Amino acid sequence: MSDLEIRRATAADIPVIVAMLADDPLGAERETPDDLSPYLAAFERVAEDPNQHLVVAVREGQVIGTLHLTVIPGLSRQGATRALIEAVRIHADARGSGLGTRLFEWAIEESRRQDCVLVQLTSDVTRTDAHRFYERLGFTASHVGFKLAL
Amino acid sequence: MSDLEIRRATAADIPVIVAMLADDPLGAERETPDDLSPYLAAFERVAEDPNQHLVVAVREGQVIGTLHLTVIPGLSRQGATRALIEAVRIHADARGSGLGTRLFEWAIEESRRQDCVLVQLTSDVTRTDAHRFYERLGFTASHVGFKLAL
Repeated sequence: MSDLEIRRATAADIPVIVAMLADDPLGAERETPDDLSPYLAAFERVAEDPNQHLVVAVREGQVIGTLHLTVIPGLSRQGATRALIEAVRIHADARGSGLGTRLFEWAIEESRRQDCVLVQLTSDVTRTDAHRFYERLGFTASHVGFKLAL
Repeated sequence: MSDLEIRRATAADIPVIVAMLADDPLGAERETPDDLSPYLAAFERVAEDPNQHLVVAVREGQVIGTLHLTVIPGLSRQGATRALIEAVRIHADARGSGLGTRLFEWAIEESRRQDCVLVQLTSDVTRTDAHRFYERLGFTASHVGFKLAL
């Protein structure tokens, strides 16, 4: 994996990012890869916000992974800035290759660069394999994640 | 509670916000209300970011509650913008008065105004009373919340 590059996503990456978001037990029911227009509109909002870090992992010219890191300033924990990780996906062809670890190492390093003191994420309770992966990376399952659809 | 106002926090509110953050079983170990400087620096970052909505609830001129709402654009769920709630506190004198519900109603309404399709939060596994409160508001405990201290 020495030729792996993790770089900021561009609009040209949106089709493959959306395909990865959809190629997932939960994502398959939630995404619409045949209509990219809502994703392109959302990408504009992400790209213009300096606290959003949407990246892709590229190997041999192919996008094989993605991760979205958000930097969130706040008052609690002595004015701690925290980082939130969302929308991590590894291309089916690249699973089991250590790429998830590489993406998380990038996210943790970037969070440090951004002076974050905490990285957080939530994971659907059904993603038990992912939970073990996060714990191996040092994350603690200390919280319950609540969601409300509007 | 007809005279309750929920408004954007100002720097002048920081001392009472920090006092509320610290007056909490978990916050007591994490906050330093005797040194406001890190909070004031963090407030500047919050105030200049249009996606951060730090509010206070005021009744009869007294700040009695606070909530921090972050608006997060993203690609997943068809380019969904989501809202994240953090740092909710109710002043000890105002607990049990329905103020928490009022603050959450504000946050949910503001999330809709910001075109969010999802509101999310994480709550320490030990805050079981809070979990019941969130479920009464319609939130679903669908996720596990992971944190990594840097």
